[in-house]
Amino acid sequence: MTDTIKARAAVAWGPGQPLSIEEVDVMPPQAGEVRIRVIASGVCHTDAFTLSGDDPEGNFPAILGHEGGGIVESVGEGVTSVAVGDHVIPLYTPECGECKFCKSGKTNLCGKIRDTQGKGLMPDGTSRFSKDGEPIFHYMGCSTFSEYTVLPEISLAKVDKAAPLEEVCLLGCGVTTGMGAVMNTAKVEEGDTVAIFGLGGIGLSAVIGAAMAKAGRIIAIDINESKFDLARQLGATDCVNPKDYDKPIQEVIVELTDGGVDYSFECIGNVDVMRSALECCHKGWGESVIIGVAGAGQEISTRPFQLVTGRVWKGTAFGGVKGRSELPDYVERYLAGEFKLNDFITHTMGLDAINDAFNLMHRGESIRSVIHFDQ
Amino acid sequence: MTDTIKARAAVAWGPGQPLSIEEVDVMPPQAGEVRIRVIASGVCHTDAFTLSGDDPEGNFPAILGHEGGGIVESVGEGVTSVAVGDHVIPLYTPECGECKFCKSGKTNLCGKIRDTQGKGLMPDGTSRFSKDGEPIFHYMGCSTFSEYTVLPEISLAKVDKAAPLEEVCLLGCGVTTGMGAVMNTAKVEEGDTVAIFGLGGIGLSAVIGAAMAKAGRIIAIDINESKFDLARQLGATDCVNPKDYDKPIQEVIVELTDGGVDYSFECIGNVDVMRSALECCHKGWGESVIIGVAGAGQEISTRPFQLVTGRVWKGTAFGGVKGRSELPDYVERYLAGEFKLNDFITHTMGLDAINDAFNLMHRGESIRSVIHFDQ
Repeated sequence: MTDTIKARAAVAWGPGQPLSIEEVDVMPPQAGEVRIRVIASGVCHTDAFTLSGDDPEGNFPAILGHEGGGIVESVGEGVTSVAVGDHVIPLYTPECGECKFCKSGKTNLCGKIRDTQGKGLMPDGTSRFSKDGEPIFHYMGCSTFSEYTVLPEISLAKVDKAAPLEEVCLLGCGVTTGMGAVMNTAKVEEGDTVAIFGLGGIGLSAVIGAAMAKAGRIIAIDINESKFDLARQLGATDCVNPKDYDKPIQEVIVELTDGGVDYSFECIGNVDVMRSALECCHKGWGESVIIGVAGAGQEISTRPFQLVTGRVWKGTAFGGVKGRSELPDYVERYLAGEFKLNDFITHTMGLDAINDAFNLMHRGESIRSVIHFDQ
Repeated sequence: MTDTIKARAAVAWGPGQPLSIEEVDVMPPQAGEVRIRVIASGVCHTDAFTLSGDDPEGNFPAILGHEGGGIVESVGEGVTSVAVGDHVIPLYTPECGECKFCKSGKTNLCGKIRDTQGKGLMPDGTSRFSKDGEPIFHYMGCSTFSEYTVLPEISLAKVDKAAPLEEVCLLGCGVTTGMGAVMNTAKVEEGDTVAIFGLGGIGLSAVIGAAMAKAGRIIAIDINESKFDLARQLGATDCVNPKDYDKPIQEVIVELTDGGVDYSFECIGNVDVMRSALECCHKGWGESVIIGVAGAGQEISTRPFQLVTGRVWKGTAFGGVKGRSELPDYVERYLAGEFKLNDFITHTMGLDAINDAFNLMHRGESIRSVIHFDQ
C-alpha cells in the first residue's frame, strides 16, 4: 500500500486566473486506479478554453492538463494491465472494452466513466487531489499539470519505453486527433483531395495524416501565413489565405479543385468555418469532418440541399482513436519514423513557467509548448 | 424517321394555376433521344412544389410529372440501349456512365445533362413540346403528365415487361427514394433501430426498406395518425405522434430507444424535423439521412457537438440509386414479391382528373394517386 505523496502542480483556482504553482497532496490509487509520475505535458487550447471560464463543464479549483506522458508509480487493487515502471499516455477518452460504446465497434467514445469524469471526479465520485485538506478537481480524467496524478486503469495507454515521453505526450491529444481524423474518421485514400482549415497543432497533424495517407492534394488554409512554411514542409501542396480573396473561401476552394474536395477538416472551432468546410466539399461524395470545439451554445448551419446532393457532415473526438488498443500503434509508427513530433514543439519550459505557455498560445506564437517536469 | 405527334397533356401554364388538359405537339426524338408512350404516372409532392411557384428552378409553361412508366414509341439516331416496345421508367437522375460523377462509383448524381435539364430543356437546349408553335418546357427531364414524352436515352431504365407499369411507375421516384435511402444510402443492417419522420409515400417506402433490411425496431413518426395503420402493416414496430408529448420529439425517441436510433430519415422537407431527426440519433454512430426537400433558402442547424460526438448528417437523392444499372433490379424484387406497391396507390384517375390528385395530396387524403392514361 502506498501513501499520499506531495506533488508540485499548476492549480487553476478559478476562471480567468493565471495558474498557480502549489504543492498538493495526491492520494494513493484506489481499486482499479493508477498513480503516475508525469514526465511531460503539452499545453492545449482546450486547457485554455476551460481556464477562460467559457467551458460550461469547467470545475474549479482544478488541475488542468490532458496531453501527457508518464511512468506508473503505483497501482491500486485489481490493476493488471499496467505495472510500476510502465510508460503510459493518459487518455481523456478511456476504453473500458465493456460498455455499449466500446462493444459497438463503431466509436471510441467509451461511456463507462463519462459522468464522473465530466464532474472532475474519479469513478467513485471523489478526488485524489487536495491542498490543505480541501479537494481539488481532476480535469478530463487526466490532470497532467501535476508531477503526480491518478487515473483509472482504463484511461491509460501503455506505450513502448523506447519513445521519448517529452514528444509522444503530444499523442495524448492534438496530434492523434488530427491524424486520426484523417486516417480513422475520414479514411482518406491515396490520391484524394483534402482541405484543412486552421493550422494549429491539430490542423498540422491533419496535414501529416493526409500526407501519410498519400492524399494527392493537401490544401492548407489559415489567415496566419506564418504557419504556411511548416505546413508545406509537412506535406501541404497548396496554402491559401482566405483574406487574399473577396469571395467566400468555399467558392475559392471549389474553383481551385474543379468542383470541391473529397474531404475537409475544420480544426479551429469556428462555426462559420465549419460551414465553409462542408460547402467546399465535392457534390456527390465530399465529406467534412468537424474537429474543432465551438463555444457553448454556438450552432452550425447550412442549406439541406448541401447534404441532399451528397455531401456528408460528421465530426470526431480524439481522431476516432481507441486509446488503449490503438494508440500504442501510433507510438510504434512514430518510432518507425513515419512522422515526426518535434516539428510541433516550438517551446519547452518547466512547470513554473506554465503561464508563459498559455500566453504564447494566445498570441499564436507557439504550435505546442511542452512542460518538462524535470526542468 | 417518325413525325411530330399529337398528345393529350396536363400543362402548367403558370405558378399556382390548376393544370390544363391540352392537345400538344410532341416532336420526334432527336439523336440520342427516345419518345415514349406514357402508360401511368404518379403525382408527387415535388410536382406540387414546382406548381406552387416556390421552386426557384421552376419554368413555365411546362408539362410536369416525373414518376412514370411507359413504352418506347420511337428512338432517335444512335440509340442502342432501348428499342421500340421496351418498357421503361423515366429517370430524373440519369446515368450516362461517362461523367466524373458516374465514374466515381460514389454517387448516383450524374452530371451529364444537369444544366439543360434544370432549365426544362433537352440536352441540345431546345424543347420537344409545343402548343400552337409555342414551346413548352420539359420538367425534371421526364414530363410524364403527357401521353407522349421525349427523354434522353440515358434517362430511361429498361424494365421487365412482366411488371405492371401502373404500379412500378412509383419506382420512378418516391418508393425508390425511400427504400434506397434505407438500403443504399444508410445501409441499414439486421437488428438496427430506425426512426422515420413523416409517413407520406417516401416515409412509408422507408418503412418498407427498413423491414426488408430486417431492422429490429422501426419507429414511424407523424402528426397524422391516420397513417399509422398502414405504417404498422408495412413493418413499423412503433408509431409515435409528436403531439402526444410536451417535450421535443428527439428527446422522446432517445428515451424510447435507450440512447437514440442507429439511423433516422427525414421524409418531409421540414428543417426543424431534420434537426430532430439528427438529434435523436445515438451518440457515437447514429446517422441521419435527409430525404425531404426544404423550401428555398431554408437552413438546417444544430450544435456541432452533435457531430463531434459521433453523429453523421447526410442526405440522399433518388435513394442513391443509379437508375439504369440498379432500378431494373428493384422491379425484379417487386416481381419476386419482396414488397408491394399497391399499398401506396390510394387513388387512380384519368388525366382529365389530374387536379383532383393534387387536391387529395394537399388535404393529406392520398398516399399516391396514379394517373392512368387509358382511363
